[in-house]
Amino acid sequence: MKKLNSMNKEELLELINESQKKYDSYKSKNLKYDMSRGKPCPEQLDLSDGILDCISSTSGLKAGDGTDCRNYGGLDGISDAKVLFSQLLEVGVNELIVGGNTSLNMMYDCVSRAMLKGVLGSDMPWGKLDQVKFLCPSPGYDRHFAICEFLGIEMITVDMNEDGPDMDTIEKLVSEDASIKGIWCVPKYSNPQGITYSDEVVERFAALKPKAPDFRIFWDNSYTVHHLTDTPDQLKNILESCKQAGNSDMVYIFASTSKITYAGAGIAAMGASEANIEFLKKQLGIQTICYDKINQLRHVRFLKNMDGIAAHMKKHAAIIRPKFDIVLDILDKELKSGGAAEWTCPNGGYFISLNTMDGCAKAVVAKAKEAGVTLTGAGATFPYKKDPRDRNIRIAPTYPSLDELKNAIKVLCVCVLLVEAEKLLAGM
Amino acid sequence: MKKLNSMNKEELLELINESQKKYDSYKSKNLKYDMSRGKPCPEQLDLSDGILDCISSTSGLKAGDGTDCRNYGGLDGISDAKVLFSQLLEVGVNELIVGGNTSLNMMYDCVSRAMLKGVLGSDMPWGKLDQVKFLCPSPGYDRHFAICEFLGIEMITVDMNEDGPDMDTIEKLVSEDASIKGIWCVPKYSNPQGITYSDEVVERFAALKPKAPDFRIFWDNSYTVHHLTDTPDQLKNILESCKQAGNSDMVYIFASTSKITYAGAGIAAMGASEANIEFLKKQLGIQTICYDKINQLRHVRFLKNMDGIAAHMKKHAAIIRPKFDIVLDILDKELKSGGAAEWTCPNGGYFISLNTMDGCAKAVVAKAKEAGVTLTGAGATFPYKKDPRDRNIRIAPTYPSLDELKNAIKVLCVCVLLVEAEKLLAGM
Repeated sequence: MKKLNSMNKEELLELINESQKKYDSYKSKNLKYDMSRGKPCPEQLDLSDGILDCISSTSGLKAGDGTDCRNYGGLDGISDAKVLFSQLLEVGVNELIVGGNTSLNMMYDCVSRAMLKGVLGSDMPWGKLDQVKFLCPSPGYDRHFAICEFLGIEMITVDMNEDGPDMDTIEKLVSEDASIKGIWCVPKYSNPQGITYSDEVVERFAALKPKAPDFRIFWDNSYTVHHLTDTPDQLKNILESCKQAGNSDMVYIFASTSKITYAGAGIAAMGASEANIEFLKKQLGIQTICYDKINQLRHVRFLKNMDGIAAHMKKHAAIIRPKFDIVLDILDKELKSGGAAEWTCPNGGYFISLNTMDGCAKAVVAKAKEAGVTLTGAGATFPYKKDPRDRNIRIAPTYPSLDELKNAIKVLCVCVLLVEAEKLLAGM
Repeated sequence: MKKLNSMNKEELLELINESQKKYDSYKSKNLKYDMSRGKPCPEQLDLSDGILDCISSTSGLKAGDGTDCRNYGGLDGISDAKVLFSQLLEVGVNELIVGGNTSLNMMYDCVSRAMLKGVLGSDMPWGKLDQVKFLCPSPGYDRHFAICEFLGIEMITVDMNEDGPDMDTIEKLVSEDASIKGIWCVPKYSNPQGITYSDEVVERFAALKPKAPDFRIFWDNSYTVHHLTDTPDQLKNILESCKQAGNSDMVYIFASTSKITYAGAGIAAMGASEANIEFLKKQLGIQTICYDKINQLRHVRFLKNMDGIAAHMKKHAAIIRPKFDIVLDILDKELKSGGAAEWTCPNGGYFISLNTMDGCAKAVVAKAKEAGVTLTGAGATFPYKKDPRDRNIRIAPTYPSLDELKNAIKVLCVCVLLVEAEKLLAGM
């Protein structure tokens, strides 16, 4: 196919005509595919069903240190879970809290408590200030942005480069504006691009000199072991880097097993300096007596250690890698020669990020929905759901079956061609 | 024994002498009993171990409506759990949210979100007001009071009568002061007295005319099925009463299975008007994707229905009733004739509330601790940990064994006599 932007009127009309026919044919099939969220598919969930058998009424329900996991107590997690998660988070056993079933909730709690009470080193609660701002490298994770919007935290969009966020802008902004209290990062296999921050980016994060003494990096390492290939990306240890830069209290690290075991019934954990953890535990002790220690024990017995996790994640990759391949394959075939879009080829994570021509994403997503293919809302990957160039579409390949996926991505490609050709034609 | 307050100097000296001997003998035994919290004992937890066997890798993990409990989704709980908890909370299936492992956390979330964003009907977030106040019927549950203290909510102590809180005072205060936004209640088998609110008290609650349009009753019905006898107390339905009084949005009801199944790994739920629930779900959707639906399913399969819960609670009562009896028996024998203290004889719940002579509770608790018996801190049952008459001691009989309990309560009684006799002597 000729490049779309070098097509003349006739060629565009022909492309529209041809694409419309294909679109109509898909539409007549009454498809109903939901690709809106990064959900594991049932076959992935099946991989963890053994977790239900590793604890029973006869198996003993005490943690390594003798704690009865059935009773109250153990605010920051059972000893065995602390060991496992300290390895996953790459922090010390005194540098973490093992929590409940979702890291999103832990992040929300950290921000909401900061608004109500401040963090270690705050002069006052963030919520008492005239303005609180967060930096939001974008495209990014919509639920991070939703927390800020809900709590009235002003979001400042920062561009993403190929090796992480635009650090020049971040360094400048945080050093000048004391109302900037935080930044959201998905540093490995980022949502939605699948980018892993380079060592230089991590070091520059660790060496930030924020004007706000209580600035925090929210380092959401959700996809740390979620490799798609045998040559996984490596992410430099942020807490170590922060310590070396004399900024040990500047980072909160989050992770969970939501996409390792069960998406709704996993275990979340957060890592930070010992001083941060001590401070947070005092706040947390008001909020709850303990998290579900039985589920923590279940996870330790099932996953065992980092080798166990790595072996388990290979099974996930065997299921979802073909799904990523098929998406990339169809995008290549349908869109590459015409230059209709650009997309990422991630080494891990849950998403492929696709950029259309400027001003087309909303129309493409709407058109796909009309044909029965629900994608993540256009704009969702940006603060306030506003993609300044209206071009980013997040593709979540994991949940649908291979057949469904094949159809869904073909529909997406036809919609891209149709919307773009019409736009080019209208601009002639 | 003669009444302490009618003893002369010699009689008091003799009592002190005799009690001191007993005290020293206990002290020499190096006891180490912890009666500080209302924890179930291991035998009670054993009753629920079957909950671990009712879900396995081969048992099917779909809720009644087909939801895969392993995946994301279902913010307000699985359909089956909604049915069960609607019966426990005595609300409709659209009038509740089934949550995570602790109702304390649900209550904290409700108050903290109210501070940050307000509740249904708020003109502005509570935290933006100059003052926010809660009424605290006392003695009450220390963790309720800790939430207020943490969030800077001013607490106003309200006396407890034998049929519930002093409603005259409550009616007056809430109708006059718009900064009073809430009240904490444990309406059935109250912590620590074991009192159940009378129908009249419930009706007067429902008919309150608060000056604040966004006033909420936090109705913590933790002990709703936790009977100790075959003639359980009855509590009038607060949501129904509120509806009849035209105040349907005024109450949040909380309950959990923490003291039905596992204390650290149960299921919490809250009930409220449909309008409240709709409003709360929108806020909750920012905070989390879903609670642990697998544990919800586990609870439904294990407890089945209200008959299942009732049968299960009888087993609990069979274990803990003898513990309450032994405490009451020893208190009767050691303290009654001397008039040294007053205490409650609850029909359910987890505590016995003991009042010493004014000004003695702190000294008694300290003395017991010196002899190896840790009780709930004196004052803990009041806002700001300040018991205005320094007389209330919360006894938590469930966790220790019968033998431990026998010794612990004897120590407590000796401490009461010793402290009171010394105080009376000093005042002569």
